[in-house]
Amino acid sequence: METYGKRDSMTPNMNYSRLKDSYLFYNIAQKTKTYLAEHPGTHLYRMGIGDVSLPLCRTVIDALHHAVNDQAVQESFHGYMPECGAPELRTTIAAYYARRGVQLAPEDVFVSSGASDELGDILDILGRDQRVLIMEPAYPAYVDANIIAGNEIIHAASSREDGFLALPDPSVHADIIYICSPNNPTGAVFSRAHLRAWVDYANKTDAIILFDAAYEAFIEDAEIPHSIFEIEGAKTCAIEICSLSKTAGFTGTRFGYTVIPQELMRGGLALNAMWVRNRTTKTNGVSYILQKGAAAVFTEEGQNEIHENIRVYKKNAAHLMAALDTLGIWYCGGKNAPYIWMQCPKNMGSWAFFDYLLHEIQVIGTPGEGFGSAGEGYFRFSTFGSPEDTEEAARRLVALLGK
Amino acid sequence: METYGKRDSMTPNMNYSRLKDSYLFYNIAQKTKTYLAEHPGTHLYRMGIGDVSLPLCRTVIDALHHAVNDQAVQESFHGYMPECGAPELRTTIAAYYARRGVQLAPEDVFVSSGASDELGDILDILGRDQRVLIMEPAYPAYVDANIIAGNEIIHAASSREDGFLALPDPSVHADIIYICSPNNPTGAVFSRAHLRAWVDYANKTDAIILFDAAYEAFIEDAEIPHSIFEIEGAKTCAIEICSLSKTAGFTGTRFGYTVIPQELMRGGLALNAMWVRNRTTKTNGVSYILQKGAAAVFTEEGQNEIHENIRVYKKNAAHLMAALDTLGIWYCGGKNAPYIWMQCPKNMGSWAFFDYLLHEIQVIGTPGEGFGSAGEGYFRFSTFGSPEDTEEAARRLVALLGK
Repeated sequence: METYGKRDSMTPNMNYSRLKDSYLFYNIAQKTKTYLAEHPGTHLYRMGIGDVSLPLCRTVIDALHHAVNDQAVQESFHGYMPECGAPELRTTIAAYYARRGVQLAPEDVFVSSGASDELGDILDILGRDQRVLIMEPAYPAYVDANIIAGNEIIHAASSREDGFLALPDPSVHADIIYICSPNNPTGAVFSRAHLRAWVDYANKTDAIILFDAAYEAFIEDAEIPHSIFEIEGAKTCAIEICSLSKTAGFTGTRFGYTVIPQELMRGGLALNAMWVRNRTTKTNGVSYILQKGAAAVFTEEGQNEIHENIRVYKKNAAHLMAALDTLGIWYCGGKNAPYIWMQCPKNMGSWAFFDYLLHEIQVIGTPGEGFGSAGEGYFRFSTFGSPEDTEEAARRLVALLGK
Repeated sequence: METYGKRDSMTPNMNYSRLKDSYLFYNIAQKTKTYLAEHPGTHLYRMGIGDVSLPLCRTVIDALHHAVNDQAVQESFHGYMPECGAPELRTTIAAYYARRGVQLAPEDVFVSSGASDELGDILDILGRDQRVLIMEPAYPAYVDANIIAGNEIIHAASSREDGFLALPDPSVHADIIYICSPNNPTGAVFSRAHLRAWVDYANKTDAIILFDAAYEAFIEDAEIPHSIFEIEGAKTCAIEICSLSKTAGFTGTRFGYTVIPQELMRGGLALNAMWVRNRTTKTNGVSYILQKGAAAVFTEEGQNEIHENIRVYKKNAAHLMAALDTLGIWYCGGKNAPYIWMQCPKNMGSWAFFDYLLHEIQVIGTPGEGFGSAGEGYFRFSTFGSPEDTEEAARRLVALLGK
C-alpha cells in the first residue's frame, strides 16, 4: 500500500448548512398542529399539500395483487429487476409517448421510484459547479437539491404580468434549466411557442432542460404539449421526468419514469449511457410489484379509470375557480393543472393569508412565499382534496372574502 | 435579474469517463449468452450473481396483499409516506437491534429502497474530495460510486494470509472506510476484536465507517457481531446500511434500512439531521405497500419463515464446502455467509477458471478479479441457487477437479 498520511478532520458536505432551516410543508404542519391543539376536534379543509385522496383504481389493484402472488411461488418469483426498468414496461411507456407523436426508443425510458427521487439524483450525472436557472415560484426541492450540490442558482422570477410563464432572457446563460409544466405551484401551462423558445435557447446556449412533466395528465387543451419532446430539437437538450403520483394516485405507492434521449450529448458523453451507468452502480432497480402496478396504468382500462379520478379533481378545481371568479380575484391554473394559484386579497402577505384562512374558515392552502420570493402575495390551492371538503371550502372562501 | 453572461460549454460529471467500461456481471452474462448460443438447450448451474431463488414467505405475502387492499379503499388509502419511513416501522427495526443489546432511537433508523441505493446516495452528505478506504476484494459498486463522486480511493488489499480480514494500518489515514461483514465476496466475518480495532481507529482518526450489514442474518456463530453498533464507540463513527434482499428474499421486491446514530457528528453537523434533510428534499418516501411487507419480516412468524429459507441456502453452502474439503481446496465463507470464496486450483486466473467451469461442467461462479485485483486467483460461489443445481454442481466440481 502507498502511504496515506494524516489528514485534516473529515468534513461532510457543508452545503447542507447553507439550506434554510425548515421546510415549507413542515411549517404548515406545525401551524396546523398548534391550531388543532388550541381548537381540538375542529374539522380542517385541507387543500395544502398536493397529496391525492382517491384510492388506486381497480385495474392497478388487480395488477398489484397478481404481482404479489407471483412473488409467492417459485415458478413466477422475480429477483433482481433490470436496473433501468423491465423492458416491456419501458416499451409500454415509449408507446404512451408515441400516442402524441413522440418517437422514443424503449432505451430512452428509465423506470424510477418517483419524480422527486429522480430530480435530485439526476444532478449526479450533470456534474459540479453548474449554473442553474430556476423559474420561480418553484417547487422548493429544485432549489434545495442544487444548494446541496453546490451549484450556482439563478432565481428567475415570473409574475402575474407574464402569466407566471417566463421566456428566456438571451443575456442570461445557464447550464441547467428547470421547467415544470403544468406548473407546480402556479398551474400555468407553457404553450408550444413558449416551449419552442426555451428549446431553441437551450440548444443555442448548450444548456440542459430538466422538464418536470408530473402533471401532464391534467392537461385539457389539445394544443398544450404534454411532453417537452413534442418540441422539435428537444432531444438534444432535454431530460424529462415524470411520475404516476398525481396521474394515478401513486403518491404513497411510488412510481415514476425519466426520459433521456440517446441523442443527448455533453462534453463528448451520452447522458443516457451515463444514467445507465449510474443506475447499474447505484440501484438494484424498482420493485417488481410496483412495476406491474404501473404497467396497468398504461392499459386501456387503466387509462379510463385514472381519468375518472382526474375528473373528480377537475370538479374540485371548478368549484374553487367559480368561487374566485365570483370574488373577482385573479388566479391562474386549475384548467390544465391540479393547482390553482390566486393573488392574496387586500395585499396580504402569503403567510398572513394562510393564518387568516386557517383561523377564520379552517381552510388550509399553501403560502406562495414557500415557493420563492416571487410567490409572495400569492397562494396555492391543491384540488386533490375530497369533493365535499373542497365545495365547502369554496363556499367559505366566498363568504369570508365577499364580505 | 443580475447578469449571467456566456459560459463555457456545459460539462457533465466527467468522472463517469474514468469508470471502467463494463461491469462484472455484465461480462458474465455476455460469456454465458455466447456459450448458450454455441450450445443451445444446455442446462447451466448458476451460482454467479447473488440473487435469491426462493419466493417470499407467507407472512410477507399476506402483509403485501393486505397493504394492496388498503390502497383500494378511500378509508385505508395511504398517500405520501413520511420520507424517513413509517414511525412504527422505524420503531420495529430499532427493537430488532435491541434484541442484540444495541439501543437505537427510532429516529436513528431510516427506511430505504435497498442497500445498493443507500450506499450510493449516502455519499451526498459525506461531501466532496474524501479519501476512501476500500478493503479489497470488494463489491464493485463501492469503487464505482466513489469514482463517480470524485473521491480518492485507497485500495487496501486483504489476502488468504489475513483470512481476507484486513486490520487497520495506523500509518494510513482515510475519511471514509467501507466494511462489509459478513463479506461479499469472501464470506469472511469480522470478529468483535477485529471490529473494535476498526472502530477505535476510526474514532482516533475521525473517519466514518460505512458498515454494510446486508448479510447479517446468515451469521451462525454467537460471538460474531451482526451490527457495528454492537461495538462500543461505533455510534460516533459509523453508519450501518442493511437490506432485506438476502435476509428475506427482497432482491426484486426492494427494501432496506440505514442507521445513522444521532450522536454522529462531523464538521459541527449531525449526519442524522443531514440525512433527514436529504431524504425530505430528494425523496417522497418508500412505498406504503413495501413498508408493510417489510414490517411482516420482523414479526415472530416472519422471522421463523425467513430462517427456514436461510436454512435451505445454508444446506447449499454445506454441499459446496464438503466438495471443496474433499478436494483439499482452500476457501473461506459459507458458514456465516451466503458466499464461498475459493482459491482457484493450479494457479489458474479467475477468469480462466470461470471459462473452465463453464465449458467443462456448465457451472457458473464469479471470478474473484471482478472484485478488485486482490481477488485474482480466487472465485466466488453464491449459495442462493436451487438445492438440486447446487448439489449437482458440487458433484461436478469434485469429478472435474478431483481427476
